[in-house]
Order: sequence, then C-alpha cells, then structure tokens
Amino acid sequence: MDTCIAPEPGAGMNAFFMAKGIAIVGASNDITKIGGRPIYFLRKYGYGGTIYPVNPRGGTIQGLPAYACLADVPQAPDMAVLAVPASAAVQALQDCADRGVRGVVVLSSGFAEAGPEGAVLQAQMVAIARKHGMRLLGPNCLGIISVAQGVIGSFSIILEQSMPCAGHMGIVSQSGNIGSYVVQNVARKGLGVSHFIATGNEADIDVADGIAALAEDAQTRLILCCMETCRDAGRLTRALDLARQKNKPVVVLKIGSTEQGQAAAASHTGALASSDAVIDAVFRRYGALRVDSIEALMELGHAASILLPGGLPKGNRITVLAASGGFGIMMADATVKAGLALSTLEQSTKDRIRQVLPLAGVNNPVDATAQVSARPEVLFGMLSALMEDDSADVTQIFLSLALYNPRLRSVYMEALRNIRASYPDRLLVVTSQGPADAVKEINALGIPVFAGIDATAHGLAGLIRMAQLARLGAAPRYQDIVESLEEGAFRNEYTAKKALAAAGIAVQDETVAASADEAVLAACRMGFPVVLKIASADIAHKTEIGGVVLNLGDEQAVRAAYGQIMQAAATHAPAARLDGILVTPMAKDGIELIMGVSRDPVFGPVVMVGTGGIYAEILQDVAVQTAPISEDEAHAMIRSLKLFPILDGARGQPKADVPAAAQTLARLSQFACRYARNVAEIDMNPVRILPEGQGAVVLDALLIPTNHAV
Amino acid sequence: MDTCIAPEPGAGMNAFFMAKGIAIVGASNDITKIGGRPIYFLRKYGYGGTIYPVNPRGGTIQGLPAYACLADVPQAPDMAVLAVPASAAVQALQDCADRGVRGVVVLSSGFAEAGPEGAVLQAQMVAIARKHGMRLLGPNCLGIISVAQGVIGSFSIILEQSMPCAGHMGIVSQSGNIGSYVVQNVARKGLGVSHFIATGNEADIDVADGIAALAEDAQTRLILCCMETCRDAGRLTRALDLARQKNKPVVVLKIGSTEQGQAAAASHTGALASSDAVIDAVFRRYGALRVDSIEALMELGHAASILLPGGLPKGNRITVLAASGGFGIMMADATVKAGLALSTLEQSTKDRIRQVLPLAGVNNPVDATAQVSARPEVLFGMLSALMEDDSADVTQIFLSLALYNPRLRSVYMEALRNIRASYPDRLLVVTSQGPADAVKEINALGIPVFAGIDATAHGLAGLIRMAQLARLGAAPRYQDIVESLEEGAFRNEYTAKKALAAAGIAVQDETVAASADEAVLAACRMGFPVVLKIASADIAHKTEIGGVVLNLGDEQAVRAAYGQIMQAAATHAPAARLDGILVTPMAKDGIELIMGVSRDPVFGPVVMVGTGGIYAEILQDVAVQTAPISEDEAHAMIRSLKLFPILDGARGQPKADVPAAAQTLARLSQFACRYARNVAEIDMNPVRILPEGQGAVVLDALLIPTNHAV
Repeated sequence: MDTCIAPEPGAGMNAFFMAKGIAIVGASNDITKIGGRPIYFLRKYGYGGTIYPVNPRGGTIQGLPAYACLADVPQAPDMAVLAVPASAAVQALQDCADRGVRGVVVLSSGFAEAGPEGAVLQAQMVAIARKHGMRLLGPNCLGIISVAQGVIGSFSIILEQSMPCAGHMGIVSQSGNIGSYVVQNVARKGLGVSHFIATGNEADIDVADGIAALAEDAQTRLILCCMETCRDAGRLTRALDLARQKNKPVVVLKIGSTEQGQAAAASHTGALASSDAVIDAVFRRYGALRVDSIEALMELGHAASILLPGGLPKGNRITVLAASGGFGIMMADATVKAGLALSTLEQSTKDRIRQVLPLAGVNNPVDATAQVSARPEVLFGMLSALMEDDSADVTQIFLSLALYNPRLRSVYMEALRNIRASYPDRLLVVTSQGPADAVKEINALGIPVFAGIDATAHGLAGLIRMAQLARLGAAPRYQDIVESLEEGAFRNEYTAKKALAAAGIAVQDETVAASADEAVLAACRMGFPVVLKIASADIAHKTEIGGVVLNLGDEQAVRAAYGQIMQAAATHAPAARLDGILVTPMAKDGIELIMGVSRDPVFGPVVMVGTGGIYAEILQDVAVQTAPISEDEAHAMIRSLKLFPILDGARGQPKADVPAAAQTLARLSQFACRYARNVAEIDMNPVRILPEGQGAVVLDALLIPTNHAV
Repeated sequence: MDTCIAPEPGAGMNAFFMAKGIAIVGASNDITKIGGRPIYFLRKYGYGGTIYPVNPRGGTIQGLPAYACLADVPQAPDMAVLAVPASAAVQALQDCADRGVRGVVVLSSGFAEAGPEGAVLQAQMVAIARKHGMRLLGPNCLGIISVAQGVIGSFSIILEQSMPCAGHMGIVSQSGNIGSYVVQNVARKGLGVSHFIATGNEADIDVADGIAALAEDAQTRLILCCMETCRDAGRLTRALDLARQKNKPVVVLKIGSTEQGQAAAASHTGALASSDAVIDAVFRRYGALRVDSIEALMELGHAASILLPGGLPKGNRITVLAASGGFGIMMADATVKAGLALSTLEQSTKDRIRQVLPLAGVNNPVDATAQVSARPEVLFGMLSALMEDDSADVTQIFLSLALYNPRLRSVYMEALRNIRASYPDRLLVVTSQGPADAVKEINALGIPVFAGIDATAHGLAGLIRMAQLARLGAAPRYQDIVESLEEGAFRNEYTAKKALAAAGIAVQDETVAASADEAVLAACRMGFPVVLKIASADIAHKTEIGGVVLNLGDEQAVRAAYGQIMQAAATHAPAARLDGILVTPMAKDGIELIMGVSRDPVFGPVVMVGTGGIYAEILQDVAVQTAPISEDEAHAMIRSLKLFPILDGARGQPKADVPAAAQTLARLSQFACRYARNVAEIDMNPVRILPEGQGAVVLDALLIPTNHAV
C-alpha cells in the first residue's frame, strides 16, 4: 500500500464503530488517568465485547486480566487505544499492526501540536498505519464513543456523568471539547447520539472520514460537524457528496470565521487557513448547512434529529400562535427577519378558531388569548383548526410561562399529545425556555422545542434549507491540474487577452502597433473612436504614467496620442521594455464587473466576481466559488451581488447581458483549472457587460504565473 | 385641572409604588377570578398596608372585612384595583375619585380594545381621572407589582409560584404577558425586581410614565421596557431624558420592527405606527439602548443589573479564556463580529500564565487547557495574572461542561470566589449554559453569566454601549410648530429653493427668464455653461417632457434651448401654467446626496439623508432622525451611510465638503420644524457636495404643503 495516499474518506471506520475487542495500551488502575478512564467507562456502560488491558506489569487492572504486551492478547482486537507517552507511541502502534489491530485511537499528546520532534513521531505513526492498512484516530484527540455498541475509546468528561442515549445524531469534531459540549447538550434534551468522533491532530482520520463513515452508518440520520481547518479539499467534498447521496444532512460549524479567529485556529492546529468566504462557498455548493454558532448547531441538530427522516418542512410558510398579542408580534418580526413567510389562514380556519375562542385574534400571528389554556379541549380545538389548514408548512406555538405552572403544563401536554396523535404528519414546533423536563417530554412527542423566538425562526430557516439542500444535484468535482499555459501569455495585457480569447472569452479586437502608422491603420480598420495603451510587461500601472489615452476620434488624434504615450514611457519608465502600443476600439456603454481567479492553499483555484469601480471596494460586493463552475453557478454568483439590480434593469435602465457575463465567468473558471499548473492568479478588470443580447467583453486582463515575484 | 392635558410623565406614580392602603373593587372569594387574585396575592406575600375588599354584598372576603362601597372604606386608600365589568367601571372610578383614591388600576377589559363603545367608556374614565388628579393604569392591563413594598395590583400568573425578590430592575411593559415573562426570567436567575408595571391600553399611564417613575425611584438602577407603540413623542423623549439625568440606563424592546409585525401591532393596539427607522433613531438619540429580541433584553438586563451602578465596562477590549482552543476561537470570532476588540496581553502576563500552566496558549484567546481546573490554585493563578493586566476591560471565561461536574464545579467556584475577593473592581463575565443553581451562585458573586458565546459578545457590546450612552449630552427637544411658510414658496422649484435659501441653505444662483433674451442675459451674468429648466407648478417630471437642457456653452445654445423647451412644453403639457424658464449655472463636479423631510404620525418632521442615484435605491442607504438636528448630529448621520467612504476620499478621490453637507442637513431640519404648520414634506434631490472647502449646493427642491393632494 502506498504510504503517502490516504484511504478514501470513511474507509475502515467500522474497526471503531463495530469493535468486538478493545485493547487499552498503557492501561491503568487509576480511573482519573487516560489509561484508566476508557476501561472504567467501558465497564461502567456495559461494553459487550472483550476489554484487553495492556501493561508491562501484567496482573489485573480494574478487575480484568492485564497483558504484558499486545502480542500476548489472545485474540486480535479490532481496536486499540494508546494511552502511552508520545515517545512510546510509535512502537506501540507497530505492535498494534503486528497483532492485526484495524483501528487505533491515540489519546496521548506530544505530537505535531508540540513541535517538530512530535511531528516526526506523528509522521512515523502515519507511515505504519498506512503500510498496514490500519486507521489511526488522533493523536492528541478525545477519541471515539459509539453509543449503541458501547464502544468507548475516550476519556471525555461527559462520561463521568452518564453515557448519552443511543440515537440518530452522528457528531464529528476536531476539537474534543467542542464535540463533548455538543454531545452533553444533546443528551440533556433526551435526544440520542449514534457515534461521537473527535479527530484531534487528524494525522490520518479527519473530519471527512467522520462525515463519510457516518453517512454510511445505518443508525445515523444526521451529521453534526465542528471544524477548525480543512487540510484536504478533495476528501472533504467527496465526503459531503457521499452524505448527500445517502440523504444524511450535514450541519457544519466551521470556526475561525474572522481574521482573528483564523489566526487563533492557525496557531492552534498548525494548518493553513482557507479564506472563510471560500469555505463558505464550498459548503453551500456541496450541500452542507453551515451555521454560525455552536448554539445554532445544537438547536438545528436537536430539531432535525427529531424530524428526520421525512419530517422536514415542505416550504417556508409559518403560522405563529401565542396566548398573547405581544408575543405574536415578536414572532412575526422574527419570522420575517429570518426570511420566512407568514401564512395567510383560510377563512374557514378563522371561523373555526372563533368558534372555540370568540376573542382570539384570527390573523397570523394568531392571538389565542389567555383563554386558550382554560381547558385542553379549547387548545385542542384551536390547534386542530390550524393543523387542518394547508396554508402553512409549520405551526409555531409559543409557551412563555405555561410549562412552569403545573396546572397549565398539564393542559398543554394533554393537548399536544392529542394533536400529535390526530395529526401525525403536520409539522408543529414549540418555543419555550423550559423547564428542562417539560422540553424533554415535548421532544419525546416528536415536537422540536427551541429556547427562544429568534432561535426558532433561525432554526426553522435552517430546517427549510436542509430540506432544499437534500434536493441539490451533484456538484462538479475539483478538476486535477492538467497543463501549463505557454509562457508568452504572461507577457502583457495583449497576450493575456489572446490566451483568454482562445478559451472562448470575449475580448476586444486589438492590435499591437509598432509605429504611429500601424496604429492609424489599425484604428481605421476597427473604426473610430479608439483607445491607445502602452504594452509592456514592465509597466503594471499604465494609467499612472500617462500610458493610456481614451476616445481618439480621428487619425490625427491617434498620431498625437502615439507620440505622447511614447514620450511618457520614455520619461516615466525609461528602463521598461516596450512591446509597442495597443490599439483597441473605445468600448461601448455597459456595466462593469471585475472577475478574477486566486489560489486557495487548500481548495486550489477560486473564481471571483464583483461589481466594478469604487462601489465594489466600499461594499465588498464580491462572490467566490472554487473553480470550475458551471454557467448556472456563475449566474447564481452574479445574482448574489448586492448591486445585481443594476445589471437587472433597476430604475428603468437597460438590462445587461447577464447570460454572457455568466458564460465569461464560467469559462474563466475552466481556464483557471486547465492551466492551474502555472497560472496563479487572473485579474479581468473591468469586464464590461453590454446590454441584453450584446455580450460581455474583457477590457483589461492580467495573468500572474506561479512563483511570480510581485 | 385641564382634562385634555396628560400629567408630566411619572407624576403621581407613588400612589402605586408606595400605596399604604389598597381597595379591591369587585373583590371576590374565588382566588381564580381577577377580583380574587390580587387579594390572595397581597396576603400571601405579606403586604404591610391595609387591604379593603369592596363588594356590594359586604361580609368578609378571603377572611377580610369587606365594604359594600368605597364610601364605606374607613380611610382613603392610596390605590384601588378595579375588577368590575367595563360597564360598571366608570362609576367605580368616580367612586374612587370621591373617596380620595390617588391611583387606580383597571384590570378589566372591554374598553378601547373591544370597539367604539368601549372607547367611549375609556374616554370617560380618563376624563374623571384627569379632573381629580388621579392616575389611571390600564384598562385591559395586567397591573402593577411593587416588590419591596409588597404592593400587588395584578393577577399575573407568575405570582402563582412566587413573588420575585426585591432588587434593582424596574420593568415596564405594554403587554402584561411579555412583562411577566421577563419578570419570571429575572427571578429564575435569582436577580431582583423593584417594580413591574404593565400599561395595557395606556388610557392615562403609558410606558413614558413607567420610565419616568422608575427613573425617580430610589430602588431602581436599571429600566427594562417593552413597547408595541408610542402614542406621544414628547412624553417618551422627556421620560428618556429624565432617566438619563438620573443615570438609569433604559433598555428597550420595541416590537413590531417589520412591516408584518407592525401590522399585527396596529391591529392589536389600534395605534398609528411610526416607521421603525424613526423610532430606532429616537432611542439612539435619547440614550435608550434598543435590543432586537426579548432574549437580548433579558440577557442584557441580567448583566447590567449585576454590574450597576459603577461596574459597566470602561472600554471594549476583551480577553477571552477557555479550557480548550476551539472554544477560544469561537469566542474570538464572536467578539470581533460584535464589534469588540481582542486585547493584546502584556508579556509579563504571558510569562505568569506559563508559570502556572506551561502548556497554555498565552495569546488572546487564551487556551488554558484542561489542566487549568486541576486545582483551584492553578485557576486562581491564571485568572489573577489576567486580572492584573490592564490591557483588557473585560475578561470572559467560558465554562462548557465544568459546572455540570461536581468536582470541577467546586474548583471553579472556589477560584471565582477568591478572584472576586482579590480583584473586586475588575470586570469578569462567565459564559455557561448552567446548571441553573450554579448560574445563580456565580451571579451572586457579582459576575454576570451569559448562556451562549454569541449572547456574551452581544451582551458585552450592549453593556459597553450602555456605559457610553450614560455619557451622552442632552438631546435637542422636539420643537413646537411655530409658523406657516408663505403659500408662494410651494409654487415651483425656484420658489422652493428661494425659501430654503432664506433659511441659509445654499442653492445655485438662479433666474426665471420670461424670454430667450432674459435667459441669455442671465446666462451672461452667471457665466457659461448654464442649464435651462422649465418652471411650472404643473410639471413635476421636467426631464421626461424634455423640459431640461444641460451644458449650454454660449448665447446661441441658450436661445436654441429656450425655444426647444417652450416647444416641448406646448406639445407635452399644453395645459400647464408656465412660470418661465429657469436659468442656472451648470453645477460643478461633486458627489450627490439626497436630503428630505417627511412627517411621522407620532414624532412629527423627520429629516433624511441618503446617497444619491441608483445606488441609494438598491442599497437602501439612508439615515433618519427626528427634526431638528444639530450639525454634529447631521454629521453623524452622513457618516453612518454605507457609501460615506465616497465622500471621504475613497480610492484617492478628492474629499467632499462634509461639514457643508452637515450644515445643509441641519438647516433643512430647522426649516422643517419652523414651518411644520404647513410644510408636510421636503425633497432636496440632488444636493451636490463639492470638494472640501467648496460647500454643498441644492440642485433641485420640492416643497409639499400639508393637505396637499398628490
């Protein structure tokens, strides 16, 4: 086996998920030590397989027979947990390989995170694992918990209190602490976990492995993922593709979304950071749902785990209901701000509500008044009217204090139980702060509970996007680097545009003139007015040295401008090698965009489009995506610009040729992939988008080769 | 006493806050009825004054002697609670007045909220109250709870469980349910309430009364306020002014912030709605801190009530600390996104941290590692290093799971207690989800606890703004309508600009020419190039009928344009009365803004500034404030525009004359106030802002009189 190539994401993870025997290397009697805790937890929570404590002293450990070395273990364990110092870990891993172990968790720290010597040890471990087809989790990680199987290769603090109950939520996190926090939060709501994987240093197994393994896992319906860094674009996108094929929604918290957070992440993990905008675009494209806080991750995870499979909202029309007008108003505000729609109730529904509650406000938000909780039948009557109204996809009910009041709690619980039984397919969510046991009880009815009004609106928006993402088609794969662009293309604007034109990107008719006569000839052929620009690889900022003259209306003006530019170049850039002077027609009216390509350290060529000019800079009005992109994707990027209405005929202006702009952007992205071997950056600024049907044309372009010193 | 004029905000509210005797009119033995609940609660929670049940049947009610009518009550009660049907309330209120009651709570509904007949009853009650100098709370309200005095004129559900403990948080809410929810939430954290006032229909006492009374109240340090509508701008702003003078921060949740929410609020309260942008500007100007959700209101309220007085952050530099790198990264992200700064620790601090925790990450975010909770001394050593570092204003510590673990909880509690004792003046906040009793315990140490990472960052940003608002100067008062603008000013663009010019607003040199000769003469005097525009009160869209010709360079061009415009007017607007043709110099280069005035139904003239042209429309790039505004305020409004960098010399362009723009905007606002009697709207579009030092000039203007049919 090639020791350099990582296995496909998720390969061999059943060594952990289904481990029939577990060896603890560095086993200890002390249950506060990392060599003692896993054994203690395995026994406490009734692991059904065999536990093999390994310790040179042998004897018994925590009441189990201990083995002096792995070779003594009577049967090959599927999984081993290494709780030995970093210096002993390489040998221990080799012992695992020799004994036929298939998956190893290295809990110990002191590897790449500790410095160059640790990095060497880590690399040696990877080499051994790859050579023997063994998967390695960690090092410097919190390990793994597979709940249904009772597999524990972890010292997580959460296990001190209890084992989470078995369920459908798979959790993979680089940070063990973040993952533990999520698991504990899930457990407190009475929801269940399938597997929890903490990847730590990710020497071998990374988050992509976790996603892929959970996607293949029959118990898992939903994958929650916490990432600090992505080191391998291809593995991540393949894992996300797999999860989508398997219909397992992936909710991602990617931390380090600000410059400061990224700096902290880089120093914490030692990995190169992709720009946050790029990673955001990747998640969007590959159908993962990104959330922006751990609270949002947990709220969305809770709700989705209750509703999956099959129970996600079919649309975004929400009916909100509270026992008080003021709360209804807040819920309406939150619903609208989250981009959802308030449903319009049918007249028959309003009539039915008034029958049970004469004083109710029957528009949406529905004001049920305090009378709604007088008797369970009233509440049931009211809710059943809403359940039978098809104008909403979701009914949201706000319980401010009711659940804290024993009398009201029983009224609500009875009505909710009956509603659930009578309308099992209608989607109902509750907003309530608690108490915790009431929340658990409502969750157990299959009704998600959100703690706050805004949290509900954002959570519903997330569930709706989740339902939409499930319908996404396959995303294009990242294309391997194929060839080099010929060196000459990097020479100047003219050669750059020629190369782009060869890729089907429209540029202006252009000629490089070596004399005033040649310039005049070219201008006459093109038709006046024309523009003259200095052409030199040594002059980057043409305008600043007086190297550009616009709007030349006749032969005489062209001649004068030619002389003027040569003079300016001689004065301001005497050392520059001149290729001549570029003659080009004066561009027609249109709207300017900028398009470009940059190189992400993880995701490779990234294509960018933004509104041109001063506004783009102030408004940061750009969209990015990893190359290549389809024309549809290009179209969506352009439409996502804040100033897109200007292209779309705002204020009665002519519409711009957006399809041509999208085609140009898509072709640029394909060009960047094809020539990724030596094209580092591309800058097309401006690209003028002409009126509808007239195309888009690149007015200036710059190609920067790899290893180019700026 | 004039029955039309409301008392000053807060006047007479001690009748409730300090009530020595309370009559319950419509008293009942049934403690589930609104006539029974207040008596039950007053007795249950040990009200110290005398309770006078009033019921025609006399006898005893809930063990107390009952009176057949108010006249029989032996001593005049300060306060009465009416729990009688709406039809009987007017007489009951008259009885209160006759018996010398000073404050009346009308719990009953069936008034303005129920229809026109109820509105009549409500108006009659207001007249009686005003005539006798009596304050009236409600009707259709949840009433009042004054915690320290044990005064209860309410049937709130929260009292079924317990009375909130006495404290410093004053709560005023139109909606009784929203207010109750806040009170209960406060109580659950172990924090204390001074008074809770629910204003309901606000026939007399409104939210402004509540704010003003709480501002004057010695027990109250902080005012939480929930509003659906504001009916009286002057009362609200006077109350906010008073609160600021008394150093009582006001945190406001104004619900109905979206169009849909406002529609719901309008149907719920029957009041006209101000635009949300206007009310937002008013809160900002008068130093109230607006929050955008009830969760934010409660979180900020909790934290402020712990820190006030004196403990608010002095600045926005935050040190974040977690026992895990991943959490630190999230906290760094959240801090930066909330507009706060991560502090830069001193080297000596880093050295001290490393002494106690060799493996800690000593940059901010500080990664304390799991070792930090090994022993209280380690945690104390770490925290004391941070407490002694002056580079931060706030230290934030994240406790993910520690408080759920008895062992770790005791380590953290001991360290926090010692830190608080050793550094009582340093600001420390904790982020933790609980458990609830641990949160209470930490709160009791004077340390605010936020439930989430984002909530902490937003809460800290709120506390910092609160500290800044306390330093705000007095805001200008809304000016009474003083006079009418002469009718002629509304005639056309020319007369409008003349009127604005008379108020010190720079307009261009302009002449109305009645002939081509006059136009040429004017042009020669002004200097070429000039612009010609049709002047007619009957032609609003001059450009569209060909009524504007720009950039006329000489006499001949002016003559030609004159004829051309007259021809165009004759063709396209034959019925229009022409005032002549406006001659004006061609405006110099500059950047265009739009400025205007509109009329808010509650707050009167509102001044607006926005970026000109197509971008303003797409970006909704405008700022508003109630008129009049100072030049400083105008400056701040202009600076708040998204496209302000364009005025400020972005990309090496010349800076625009922002002071002149601010002066123009301030003068416009003063003009609007002075002539508010008959000027309904003003539109100055465009206003050209010339380069620095060259001024700002209004190029076009429109005045719309009140009652103008558009």
